Amino acid sequence: MRNTGIIPEIANNMAPRKVALTKLESHAIVHPVDTNALDIAFGGYLMSLMDEAACVVAFKHAGRKVNTVSIDGVRFWKPSLVGTILNIHACLNRVFKTSMEIGLKITETDAHTNEEIPVARAYFTFVAIDDNGKPVQAPPVEPESDEEKRRFEQALIRRDTRIELAQKLNP
Amino acid sequence: MRNTGIIPEIANNMAPRKVALTKLESHAIVHPVDTNALDIAFGGYLMSLMDEAACVVAFKHAGRKVNTVSIDGVRFWKPSLVGTILNIHACLNRVFKTSMEIGLKITETDAHTNEEIPVARAYFTFVAIDDNGKPVQAPPVEPESDEEKRRFEQALIRRDTRIELAQKLNP
Amino acid sequence: MRNTGIIPEIANNMAPRKVALTKLESHAIVHPVDTNALDIAFGGYLMSLMDEAACVVAFKHAGRKVNTVSIDGVRFWKPSLVGTILNIHACLNRVFKTSMEIGLKITETDAHTNEEIPVARAYFTFVAIDDNGKPVQAPPVEPESDEEKRRFEQALIRRDTRIELAQKLNP
Amino acid sequence: MRNTGIIPEIANNMAPRKVALTKLESHAIVHPVDTNALDIAFGGYLMSLMDEAACVVAFKHAGRKVNTVSIDGVRFWKPSLVGTILNIHACLNRVFKTSMEIGLKITETDAHTNEEIPVARAYFTFVAIDDNGKPVQAPPVEPESDEEKRRFEQALIRRDTRIELAQKLNP
Amino acid sequence: MRNTGIIPEIANNMAPRKVALTKLESHAIVHPVDTNALDIAFGGYLMSLMDEAACVVAFKHAGRKVNTVSIDGVRFWKPSLVGTILNIHACLNRVFKTSMEIGLKITETDAHTNEEIPVARAYFTFVAIDDNGKPVQAPPVEPESDEEKRRFEQALIRRDTRIELAQKLNP
Amino acid sequence: MRNTGIIPEIANNMAPRKVALTKLESHAIVHPVDTNALDIAFGGYLMSLMDEAACVVAFKHAGRKVNTVSIDGVRFWKPSLVGTILNIHACLNRVFKTSMEIGLKITETDAHTNEEIPVARAYFTFVAIDDNGKPVQAPPVEPESDEEKRRFEQALIRRDTRIELAQKLNP
Repeated sequence: MRNTGIIPEIANNMAPRKVALTKLESHAIVHPVDTNALDIAFGGYLMSLMDEAACVVAFKHAGRKVNTVSIDGVRFWKPSLVGTILNIHACLNRVFKTSMEIGLKITETDAHTNEEIPVARAYFTFVAIDDNGKPVQAPPVEPESDEEKRRFEQALIRRDTRIELAQKLNP
Repeated sequence: MRNTGIIPEIANNMAPRKVALTKLESHAIVHPVDTNALDIAFGGYLMSLMDEAACVVAFKHAGRKVNTVSIDGVRFWKPSLVGTILNIHACLNRVFKTSMEIGLKITETDAHTNEEIPVARAYFTFVAIDDNGKPVQAPPVEPESDEEKRRFEQALIRRDTRIELAQKLNP
Repeated sequence: MRNTGIIPEIANNMAPRKVALTKLESHAIVHPVDTNALDIAFGGYLMSLMDEAACVVAFKHAGRKVNTVSIDGVRFWKPSLVGTILNIHACLNRVFKTSMEIGLKITETDAHTNEEIPVARAYFTFVAIDDNGKPVQAPPVEPESDEEKRRFEQALIRRDTRIELAQKLNP
Repeated sequence: MRNTGIIPEIANNMAPRKVALTKLESHAIVHPVDTNALDIAFGGYLMSLMDEAACVVAFKHAGRKVNTVSIDGVRFWKPSLVGTILNIHACLNRVFKTSMEIGLKITETDAHTNEEIPVARAYFTFVAIDDNGKPVQAPPVEPESDEEKRRFEQALIRRDTRIELAQKLNP
Repeated sequence: MRNTGIIPEIANNMAPRKVALTKLESHAIVHPVDTNALDIAFGGYLMSLMDEAACVVAFKHAGRKVNTVSIDGVRFWKPSLVGTILNIHACLNRVFKTSMEIGLKITETDAHTNEEIPVARAYFTFVAIDDNGKPVQAPPVEPESDEEKRRFEQALIRRDTRIELAQKLNP
Repeated sequence: MRNTGIIPEIANNMAPRKVALTKLESHAIVHPVDTNALDIAFGGYLMSLMDEAACVVAFKHAGRKVNTVSIDGVRFWKPSLVGTILNIHACLNRVFKTSMEIGLKITETDAHTNEEIPVARAYFTFVAIDDNGKPVQAPPVEPESDEEKRRFEQALIRRDTRIELAQKLNP
């Protein structure tokens, strides 16, 4: 038995929703099991933290099963030692017809300044799918704040760049 | 190399802090790896989710290494299927001399009513420790809202009950 | 396919059984994967060791599916380093109508005195359930030795305390 | 910090010890995480259960660090479904100069006859090592019962066969 | 849904196949999660690496579900530290009626001489099974090179030794 | 103790090396532990398979510690069921001053046509680092075949696009 079915109230309501509702924050501690041979958090571990958070955002927004179709712009800025507390931020940047770009950022909190230090980021693209695995439309998002609008615009730039690059590589 | 040292700004500042600052929310999805022979989330998995969140709260509050010394009142209310999105809530209820009671609650979000359905809860007690593993004082908390005050009072009732019970069992 | 069905010979036989038959001992070694940021056995790991042993005891006694409903009195007395050999002791203390209290204790063996040093303990409460998840009666236990009788009595004290505490907190 | 040092009282005492003292029983439940693509307990999982039990026996007997040097005669007799309770039996069969043969057997308990059904077995050979990793002598064992004597004799037959086979293959 | 069904083109074609087609090489890095209390690669981890590679070889050759029935001649020659790159070599040595012997070898690459240093080896025996779990015939292999012929002959010696040993131990 | 140090023969030899020497193939089977709530291989699992293979290629080429700095162009084309045998292909596409682009591709083998069906791909960028974590030069690669030359050229196009995109997003 799986808990992955459709939520009709959400899945069938195509009215645009506010970006702010899609924001999500999670937390994790780097354990020895999460480290590589250099004793720092394994890339695959950070990817899994981001994948899980992105998946929650995509599922909550679409109200139905979602699939990761692509990941771009993954950057690892700072190695995280065992014992580090990580903050995972996820936010739905933009909805294209059936695909959704979700921005992910992992930070550490600087203990002395209380500022968040960037550790890694990535852009995940999910599609909402029906029971046959066919992509279906997801409700659009409505950016409000300047920050949300900037991310909304940049998601389009990233998508266009992705399409142009694919054309350059496979003309 | 471990990232678990003391943060002097926090660890040495014994001014009371607001409870609201200690609140933390995290999210997780139940994967097949997290299930038991009944295909529901394994008790040990839920305990680990709560332990990690409680540890983040205790470390952020104390500004130094912390140790779980006891767990009480663990209740499992609702079996969670694979694919369920879990919300983990953690909050520092009260600081006794060197120990801190942290309340944990795991919920699912009801897709139709958008209300959170309780899955499990527990009360974790941590102590802050110095580099020799000796318990040291942690900064007190200051409850403000009615809810925070209720939890602050109840933490004392739970502690008194624990001490009385120990005396009854080992007179 | 799951191996969790009912064993009619046991499940339907409500004759009291001797406590001694329910005793179980298991062993484990602390590996790096089981440690936290302080390089000692992770609380969640010790909980999983106890959960698994308790589950074996409950299933063998009830002869049918069992569910953890609560855990109380978890105490962590001694941090266990990587390489430590742990002894896990489980014993059915008492059967209430549908619920069973199982006592768990983890020890290390002191190499020089050969005595067991307490590491952690907990009291798990399971219910036997039918195929619809409804609680059903489990066969009673019959304590014989003084130690067994003491644990039988104390299980009732713990249960009464739990009920009283719940009433104090939610009058 | 590692808990794997020498225990002088045991490591330096070369008086023969009774086989019965080396016997060990452990228990485990097959979880979804332990299964392969056929939904039965993964060979590697059963090997890990046996390795851990064998290691406890070898370490307790030698009182110092031990290393697995070889495994022979691994047989998988019966596939174990998720939810199966496994009994792991380990026993020190014989000590050769620096090496120790430990016999392992995993069983399920037949719910209807209460007899143990064989699932898998293996023979592990460990050597006791000093801090430089050099093999050192382990205390001999003294078989008493007929069963223990049979296993003691058979360990020699297995060892001789192993040596003869190696000579046949690499003359 | 499981991807473990029969591939009729392979499973029903009993023409002998060249050994060279069954060769497989894989690679892995030892991570902290794979180590034991001595900080070297855990025996169970090396067994899992070999089991997975052997299973791929057996499945590709038989074109249907396969089961590990026995493992013999496991030798651990060299402890592998965290960060070591391991090469896993697997090759089908010989097909008996329904069983297949697969030889496994794990090596490290010596950085200075570029030669492969042996770490561990084992011989796995699989049977091909039908949907009811009954053993069925697997296509024979045809050794060509001297090395392949040597392994083909030695597989028979190992099998005969195994049968003789079983008769000696259980006359 | 870690096995991640420098190999002077490789690390200090800046003569260009042939691309063909950097090619690597690995294999894995999708187990239940590797799946998500849809019972298909988890994105994080595929990322870890690719990360490990990429890391082997980068370390073997640079002869010293390497760090993942970015991942781009991750595409998931086909969901992989439990029991699927995956082929992981890794190849060093191009070396820029201190960074190396490694192309990764995961495929399934179509049982009926024996062709490889694409499952996922990604481009990982590693830098070689010295003991203080500072980036150092890695030996250049020399493409020979048309395929290698195409990948060599495309790595530059991908890098230029990445730089241009960063400038567009943060002018």
